[in-house]
Amino acid sequence: MSSSSCMDSLSLLVVSAFLLFPTALFQLSNGGVTSSFIRKSEPSVDMPFDADVFQPPPGYNAPQQVRIMQGDHEGKAVIVSWVTPSEPGPRIVFYGMAEEKRRYKAHASSVTTYRFFDYSSGFIHHCLLKNLEHDTEYFYQIGIGESSRQFSFKTPPAVGPDVPYTFGIIGDLGQTYDSNETLSHYLANQRGQAVLFVGDLSYADDHPNHDNRRWDTFGRMIERSIAYQPWITTAGNHEIDFAPEIGEVAPFKPYKRRYRVPYKASQSTSPLWYSVKRASAYIIALSSYSAYGKYTPQYQWLQNELPKVNRTETPWLIVLVHSPLYNSYNYHYMEGETMRVQFESWFVEYKVDLVLSGHVHAYERSERVSNIAYNITNNDATPIPDPSAPVYITIGDGGNIEGLATNFTEPQPSYSAYREASFGHAILDIKNRTHAYYAWYRNHDGNAVLGDSVCFYNRYWGSNER
Amino acid sequence: MSSSSCMDSLSLLVVSAFLLFPTALFQLSNGGVTSSFIRKSEPSVDMPFDADVFQPPPGYNAPQQVRIMQGDHEGKAVIVSWVTPSEPGPRIVFYGMAEEKRRYKAHASSVTTYRFFDYSSGFIHHCLLKNLEHDTEYFYQIGIGESSRQFSFKTPPAVGPDVPYTFGIIGDLGQTYDSNETLSHYLANQRGQAVLFVGDLSYADDHPNHDNRRWDTFGRMIERSIAYQPWITTAGNHEIDFAPEIGEVAPFKPYKRRYRVPYKASQSTSPLWYSVKRASAYIIALSSYSAYGKYTPQYQWLQNELPKVNRTETPWLIVLVHSPLYNSYNYHYMEGETMRVQFESWFVEYKVDLVLSGHVHAYERSERVSNIAYNITNNDATPIPDPSAPVYITIGDGGNIEGLATNFTEPQPSYSAYREASFGHAILDIKNRTHAYYAWYRNHDGNAVLGDSVCFYNRYWGSNER
Repeated sequence: MSSSSCMDSLSLLVVSAFLLFPTALFQLSNGGVTSSFIRKSEPSVDMPFDADVFQPPPGYNAPQQVRIMQGDHEGKAVIVSWVTPSEPGPRIVFYGMAEEKRRYKAHASSVTTYRFFDYSSGFIHHCLLKNLEHDTEYFYQIGIGESSRQFSFKTPPAVGPDVPYTFGIIGDLGQTYDSNETLSHYLANQRGQAVLFVGDLSYADDHPNHDNRRWDTFGRMIERSIAYQPWITTAGNHEIDFAPEIGEVAPFKPYKRRYRVPYKASQSTSPLWYSVKRASAYIIALSSYSAYGKYTPQYQWLQNELPKVNRTETPWLIVLVHSPLYNSYNYHYMEGETMRVQFESWFVEYKVDLVLSGHVHAYERSERVSNIAYNITNNDATPIPDPSAPVYITIGDGGNIEGLATNFTEPQPSYSAYREASFGHAILDIKNRTHAYYAWYRNHDGNAVLGDSVCFYNRYWGSNER
Repeated sequence: MSSSSCMDSLSLLVVSAFLLFPTALFQLSNGGVTSSFIRKSEPSVDMPFDADVFQPPPGYNAPQQVRIMQGDHEGKAVIVSWVTPSEPGPRIVFYGMAEEKRRYKAHASSVTTYRFFDYSSGFIHHCLLKNLEHDTEYFYQIGIGESSRQFSFKTPPAVGPDVPYTFGIIGDLGQTYDSNETLSHYLANQRGQAVLFVGDLSYADDHPNHDNRRWDTFGRMIERSIAYQPWITTAGNHEIDFAPEIGEVAPFKPYKRRYRVPYKASQSTSPLWYSVKRASAYIIALSSYSAYGKYTPQYQWLQNELPKVNRTETPWLIVLVHSPLYNSYNYHYMEGETMRVQFESWFVEYKVDLVLSGHVHAYERSERVSNIAYNITNNDATPIPDPSAPVYITIGDGGNIEGLATNFTEPQPSYSAYREASFGHAILDIKNRTHAYYAWYRNHDGNAVLGDSVCFYNRYWGSNER
């Protein structure tokens, strides 16, 4: 596919954005733009417990908070997770292709509960469906009888260098009206086949005693997406749930119990860092809030992991990490410095295509820059253009309770290509081994409007252009 | 006390160094010196299992690897730990002052074992002796009958701003002949009342499958010091014992089971970071190999901890952390950068007096410098003289199996005041709230010879001099 076809897609979307909202301010990136779009100011509040999207399904002990996740390294397995409120079970998942919906069954390997201060969780089930066919729609049913529920998912195509695949990108979602709008826009977009989620899910910890009921409401809210396609999750600071003042001192306790990832399949020893292959992409999730100094497990894992990536098999190398390494907002400014100092040179050496982050509640896309020449004594510590460097995208704009980051550092630093203080989501549309079309959509007066778009050229196979 | 009295001590020691070894190369620091002392090259090997210093005490199931540690925040409690090889118990510690040696008794609150690959530990006992008198010698006996053993310790004086106190400083010790010599030199010095240990204890992990018998031999080797005075320990990379290839994936497993610290007394939630007050010093131990990014438990703890330090009560603020923030050897060069980026500005803001590190197997003392002006876009990233900054001391020169770091970066950077590729130990002799005399001794042909010495002026109470 020539570069023109990527540009064709781009032109098409620009046109559709106009149709959707003719006066939209969109920006074909050409470096150093601070969007002039000003979102109307409104308070950020979590939806009340009786909001429609939080309602449990009918029926005694009906499975709720149903979600799926890739269950192996290649995409031929799926982890199905669900919660039952009153008692353990049903433990069985029936599944099959369209013509044989209930042909197979699998048992949940794990049914657990946890306590968090004065909260007691429901029964959290995790069940692995394995030996699936690639590129195939499966139907699955949890339980039998009146409380049973049915969903479906499509497995990814077999891993290969020119397999087109489309990811949604969402971060810092929360459970406000804005959060719900972002999710609805993503679903209405209808193109995303899996979500790259860059951390900060429920924001339960913003409620008194980290009210873990907010993990349940969040799980019910996102079910309409995550029960049908995997969200490849990264842990953010709101997953830490460290609360020594109420005796909760085990970091990531609710997150690790609820969100299961296939970390052992990538020889990781922790669910907080792992990798999966999916179609033509190799996705590495890292943890900003675990140790990553030399000799630590995460460091050792990443050091071993990066050389394993075969760009002839998976050309697109994408890193997910919550805290951005490049950020020009005043919010969380330079919080990613320690990871930048530790890992940036590897990202450049291994020609990572994209580093996707959240944390800052706004949107930003960087130029391809690196800042790895510093040796303490040479004072050489300025980001410079580097064709081997990733593009860093901050997309912590899901719409959570903490509100928007609206305060920019000025002047806009040269590493910042485009920034805008809006809520929204993005789509990464991988076309083949050389091209991917990327578009970020703001939540604009209830509509999803194209705000930023760019054609990415693969760092391994593509030209030295963007 | 005037500055002259510190200088008097200094002169006295210079003289005694001459007496001990008249041709010793010593250096009254005046910046940027690379010592011309060249240690004779010899292989570093761990002493054999049948070495004298590794032998267990006689008697069936006799307590071995006896050690003490400060047991509270103020110095009125002591944790006594020991290992029995054959069965649990004795669990009782008898203790008392000179005239009433067995007046009190305390029971071990914890008796545990652990497995590490094919190794099974002995029975590890921890027992808290509390409500002790300050500045008092106590005798203690573990068990009764033929296998019982007796030791003694002296509690520190009550915390106060002008209480003199002398710390030994040892790092990266291991269990070679050099290690044993360093320990003997420290004991012969006879002035240290407690050891500040900057990480890397046994180096068991340098043996096949992290041969944990080497944790036992090390524990027996250091008993001749640590049973009589506390070693305030910091975890180094050799404490991580992360070995997924043999199924050992819980970082710090042997260390945490063997070395007990009073972390809860400083509101820490992990033994890997904590503080104690001792005489006129406030000592903060940090972990280079745990998470310390913003929002993490260690970060939150240190953020809350530093404002609590009352310099009117404890003028001397000392940080122990394994990986040095300033290091000019080629070994482990810039490995401490991530922690420097994260914590250096706090160390300067709170006028930390000394940051003591190991990791590099050599000796180095820094100028008082800081490098905290950088904001990504200003290119202002050079260490500059700063009277509020700590002196950084690298003293990973205990003598372990990995040998000496002998390769310097050239030219010697301006932040480096003195560096020498020798094994050794140091003494920090706090005189009062304003002055402390510090001396580093190299292991020189079997003797301990003064290699570097300096008078430190307290950052809170002292002048702006060194």
